[in-house]
Amino acid sequence: MITSIKNEKIQWLKELKNKVKFRKEKALFLVEGEKMIQEIPIEQIHSLYFAESYKGKILAQLFPEEDIPFTIEQLSDRVFSQLSDVESPQGIFALVRMQHAVWQDLLIEEGRRLIVFLEKIQDPGNLGTIFRTAEAAGVSAIFLSEDCVDPYNPKVVRSTMGSLLRVPFCRIEDFSAVLCACKNEGYDIYAADLQAKIDFRQERYKERTAFIFGNESKGLSEESKELATKTVKIPMAGKLDSLNVSVAAALCMYQVYLQS
Amino acid sequence: MITSIKNEKIQWLKELKNKVKFRKEKALFLVEGEKMIQEIPIEQIHSLYFAESYKGKILAQLFPEEDIPFTIEQLSDRVFSQLSDVESPQGIFALVRMQHAVWQDLLIEEGRRLIVFLEKIQDPGNLGTIFRTAEAAGVSAIFLSEDCVDPYNPKVVRSTMGSLLRVPFCRIEDFSAVLCACKNEGYDIYAADLQAKIDFRQERYKERTAFIFGNESKGLSEESKELATKTVKIPMAGKLDSLNVSVAAALCMYQVYLQS
Repeated sequence: MITSIKNEKIQWLKELKNKVKFRKEKALFLVEGEKMIQEIPIEQIHSLYFAESYKGKILAQLFPEEDIPFTIEQLSDRVFSQLSDVESPQGIFALVRMQHAVWQDLLIEEGRRLIVFLEKIQDPGNLGTIFRTAEAAGVSAIFLSEDCVDPYNPKVVRSTMGSLLRVPFCRIEDFSAVLCACKNEGYDIYAADLQAKIDFRQERYKERTAFIFGNESKGLSEESKELATKTVKIPMAGKLDSLNVSVAAALCMYQVYLQS
Repeated sequence: MITSIKNEKIQWLKELKNKVKFRKEKALFLVEGEKMIQEIPIEQIHSLYFAESYKGKILAQLFPEEDIPFTIEQLSDRVFSQLSDVESPQGIFALVRMQHAVWQDLLIEEGRRLIVFLEKIQDPGNLGTIFRTAEAAGVSAIFLSEDCVDPYNPKVVRSTMGSLLRVPFCRIEDFSAVLCACKNEGYDIYAADLQAKIDFRQERYKERTAFIFGNESKGLSEESKELATKTVKIPMAGKLDSLNVSVAAALCMYQVYLQS
């Protein structure tokens, strides 16, 4: 059992928890809590960490008959709480290998497709909620601009409720280039815009549809606005300038989902 | 100009910022940033605080010709940052008087009504987002159970984007009693429920409609479930158990709004 916060491995895990760059470099991220850990494909698990006081039975559930193909480590409760991201930890987290989807593959798939482009989403809660709603609305893939908050940030991971492991996504360096490629693949690319003439509920969405949603305070960049081929309006009562981006995205994604 | 953090008034403001109980007692709360301050009815402003480096012109905008009917105080930037709730403060906040709506008044009003009941919503971001979406969806009033996060919590205030000042709401001690009163006033009371038979988009909502949304992890209490007269289902793809409460609320509120 590791009992010291100064332990090298613990320091290393702390870096993974707190630093985007370190996570990218190692291609590993933390997933906390039993429910989410049960969702992880076993080959993606790098290692598993328990708190001393953990009483759950996850190992017996996950591996009723097999050998366990990864390292397991016990930590004192004090050490565990240093690595936990929640107030009342369940006492278990996993270190998980990132999966890298290739954006070209996500675009070309056949059949009904709804792709969501996210530009510079900054709030971890918003990004997590968009992932969660995207899964519920049957979204095919999420494309994130490089300046979005890191999807492997522990707060994002937690608020996706496991969707991060199930909705295909990738970070893209050249956002505009991928938007162009998407258009060339025959997608209609929508932006929500208060000045648009068509109500988002009146529009007939095609089999290949994409939506772009932008930064919480600044909205979409001029470049992305120009690349959107269509705009729709979400009507609003009251005096607000806009909806929260995770709400606007939810209304649009559900509209496409329930129309199909 | 106040330059010391130990100043009595600053300590008093800090208590208001951080303590629910103190806010309740004084019936005052903080509102930060120019845009939101411009929304406050002038008679509700108790006092106004500027940072030394504040360069805005809000006073000239708010009171082009009049005397200013409240106290104004300048704070050093260091003192200001102690009271600010954001990373890059604009350098202005107001102390605002709470308005107490009476729930009976909010129920009996004539005409098309949509009332939202919130039970034990714990996350400030969720509560703020629900207020913001409620305004955009023309919601008539929000009723909060006593164990919801404080709507005057600075994080909630900020994420409402001013809706807190525009959507009538009240905190209610006896949640079940008010739900009963609501039913007696002729409202249909809806809960979202995955087991429900009717899709939320197929339902024809009456002129008097109410929705109840519950706690982030536990959902609705048994008591509230029993008091809901109708249930509707929000369809979901994927493996999730539920949507984020602010998303579920947005979908339902917008459905009633756009149907009308």
